[in-house]
Amino acid sequence: MKQYKILLEEQEIPTHWYNIVADMANKPLPPLHPGTKEPIGPDALAPLFPMELIKQEVTADKWVEIPEQVREVYKLWRPTPMYRAWRLEAALDTPAKIYYKYEGVSPSGSHKPNTAVPQAWYNKEEGVKRITTETGAGQWGSALSFACNLFGIECEVYMVKISYQQKPYRKVLMNTWGAKVYASPTDLTEAGRKILAENPDSPGSLGIAISEAVEKAATDPNTKYALGSVLNHVLMHQTVIGQEAIKQMEKAGDLPDIVVAPFGGGSNFAGISFPFLRLNLEEGKNIRCIASEPASCPKLTKGVFRYDFGDTVGMTPLLPMYTLGHNFVPAPIHAGGLRYHGAGVIVSQLLKDKLIEARAHDQLECFEAGLTFAKAEGIVPAPETTHAIATAIQEANKCKEEGTAKTILIHLCGHGYFDLAAYENYLSGNMKRHELTDEEIQHAIARIDTPEI
Amino acid sequence: MKQYKILLEEQEIPTHWYNIVADMANKPLPPLHPGTKEPIGPDALAPLFPMELIKQEVTADKWVEIPEQVREVYKLWRPTPMYRAWRLEAALDTPAKIYYKYEGVSPSGSHKPNTAVPQAWYNKEEGVKRITTETGAGQWGSALSFACNLFGIECEVYMVKISYQQKPYRKVLMNTWGAKVYASPTDLTEAGRKILAENPDSPGSLGIAISEAVEKAATDPNTKYALGSVLNHVLMHQTVIGQEAIKQMEKAGDLPDIVVAPFGGGSNFAGISFPFLRLNLEEGKNIRCIASEPASCPKLTKGVFRYDFGDTVGMTPLLPMYTLGHNFVPAPIHAGGLRYHGAGVIVSQLLKDKLIEARAHDQLECFEAGLTFAKAEGIVPAPETTHAIATAIQEANKCKEEGTAKTILIHLCGHGYFDLAAYENYLSGNMKRHELTDEEIQHAIARIDTPEI
Repeated sequence: MKQYKILLEEQEIPTHWYNIVADMANKPLPPLHPGTKEPIGPDALAPLFPMELIKQEVTADKWVEIPEQVREVYKLWRPTPMYRAWRLEAALDTPAKIYYKYEGVSPSGSHKPNTAVPQAWYNKEEGVKRITTETGAGQWGSALSFACNLFGIECEVYMVKISYQQKPYRKVLMNTWGAKVYASPTDLTEAGRKILAENPDSPGSLGIAISEAVEKAATDPNTKYALGSVLNHVLMHQTVIGQEAIKQMEKAGDLPDIVVAPFGGGSNFAGISFPFLRLNLEEGKNIRCIASEPASCPKLTKGVFRYDFGDTVGMTPLLPMYTLGHNFVPAPIHAGGLRYHGAGVIVSQLLKDKLIEARAHDQLECFEAGLTFAKAEGIVPAPETTHAIATAIQEANKCKEEGTAKTILIHLCGHGYFDLAAYENYLSGNMKRHELTDEEIQHAIARIDTPEI
Repeated sequence: MKQYKILLEEQEIPTHWYNIVADMANKPLPPLHPGTKEPIGPDALAPLFPMELIKQEVTADKWVEIPEQVREVYKLWRPTPMYRAWRLEAALDTPAKIYYKYEGVSPSGSHKPNTAVPQAWYNKEEGVKRITTETGAGQWGSALSFACNLFGIECEVYMVKISYQQKPYRKVLMNTWGAKVYASPTDLTEAGRKILAENPDSPGSLGIAISEAVEKAATDPNTKYALGSVLNHVLMHQTVIGQEAIKQMEKAGDLPDIVVAPFGGGSNFAGISFPFLRLNLEEGKNIRCIASEPASCPKLTKGVFRYDFGDTVGMTPLLPMYTLGHNFVPAPIHAGGLRYHGAGVIVSQLLKDKLIEARAHDQLECFEAGLTFAKAEGIVPAPETTHAIATAIQEANKCKEEGTAKTILIHLCGHGYFDLAAYENYLSGNMKRHELTDEEIQHAIARIDTPEI
């Protein structure tokens, strides 16, 4: 009899996060001060983050224990289910075995609470009253709203204006959990006012919203800042996903040949792939991990590896990353969570060292893949998530051509039930391609004014 | 260590549906022909339903086997999780033990696919090409769209116009699974044209939409009709919920004193409560089962028990039910799925025989309960579902007053992620009370022109 779901018990929630830096031969380069361009130490982050998270950001420890209070909250939705995608395999008529790990069962509908909860917890422990953040598609903002509510911390979200307009219900969800939400750029910060002076109709971007949230935290002693991706500690918190997935694949008596995940700043990709990369590094396994990004924002496949700011205005430290430039404003594709100019430091180093792969897809191809998935498996995936499905379908089709039966694991990092306006756009035939031309990419890269590596 | 989730394996999905009629001392009265007012046999239903479902509608068998193909589809989301609501208990500071069975994990986000899948399956088996149906909030329409897509059947949904306008994304969800959706009343049917002639601005109602869907099926030999609640076979399909819940309560080493579920036509209430009522009837247990209905549509608490039509126009057989009259048009509350004038036949008989209880709540009280739940447990419940939570909170508060530690099981039959406009309405302070006055109820009942019992 076919088994569809591979489940774990609550006791099997991981007890530690996995820090891949400990296993990397080439360690990531240090961040630089935005003004002096000199390497900075952990203290430089103190205005923005609680000390425990700064420690995690720079730790060399391979395993970091998950606090009991965080594990208690994880139990509201973890361990998440893994599925064998029998119906998708049949729809594709492929010999490939396809699995997916589904993070959409969390209260906010994505993997983001995995880091929102510990971030809120450490802030609470250190007496912080208010956390600011940015959000694009709204997945991170809702996750942090959910987490702050549980620990009684105020939450203030700067939401990219185009997403604020396209996804009004994401805002309501954040309000339901008690958060304040602003459409960014706002006139509440210097950074926002500067952007609005240049372009009053700015649709906003993650980079701009980060500038606003960071400024608010840096100028208010009771307020700290939280980031939903890119940083080392954020990626590390997500490794609960891959650790569970390894146990689930073991239960299924299988091991993936290929792990695919969508790529925005790196958190969901890291979450599922780093524990599998550990098997490559430690045990000599040869699991291919592929990051799927939008063709309209192809920093991994077409960007350059150099120091760049995490935000648009240039307030954050300079980070060594694959980037299209902090001034690059991606086209308003529906996968708002992937509209970010740069890639997290660890993932960038892994890509440079060819330990992972990357692939870009246009949104039309992604929504076609999303619809195929929804019709086969029932679940409607988030626009971000469809990128991984597009890659998986390519690989499954290749298996069919070659007559090989590879095992493919998809990170189904979120559902699309807040994103149905995007599906409407696709179904109505009005969705546009947003693939960047080589000229546009060269133009973006030529504008970058930050230090080369 | 606290356990939150009580999970079952796929092999524990029930193999049979439970037919409570077999255990009832007072059997439900027969349906009557809408014209002759004489009792009708199964054949009268043949234009609308496949024969296997008609057999299930009238069967005296206590257990009906679930086809293997239906159980295979159930595995996409069943068994559903049960949770111990530790955080809600703490928020209410109650000695009560609160559990909830969560059906929102289904692809369409509610319990409705439990019957949509077998209905689509039996239609497919009997060669039906197209199924029509009505939907209010959209939960049933999306469930049937999902199910029809899996078996390659066309699906045509008449959606109550006010919901169509309030919940555009529900329509997109149905389109995503390939269904056609019309705002009812339409000019595609006699029934719809009649209503529009009387009131061109009619907001529609479930009763009107049923008239339209039934007419379409009755006048097209390739088309059958499917109902998402009220009928015996529909209620029976939902008993997988309660059967799983009993196993899960056993695993938790507990048994509920009180089971609460929202009430529209009866399907989700029946789904969770009938298997527990079996324990009352067979083993002399004393589990109280409470149906929670809107104060704006209080057929169980304020209606009359008599024969009435299932639809507004009067095309369906006359059914013995608690009703406010088939002409009653409920206020446009956000819990669209509970805006129905009558109660299913079996549930009506059980209420008449005092084997179950009923309670009404205004929507303001319900949304307050929903918000309390969302803040404590994370999950944002559907507006329909908040009615059960309102009852559960009353009972938990009573436990606190009395110092008793009763066990309360809530049927969390769906999530509210498609209903955030309703939460926005509540959070903004603009939501209105819609409690019916005694005069309005007497007026509605005085208008009923169908046979008394």
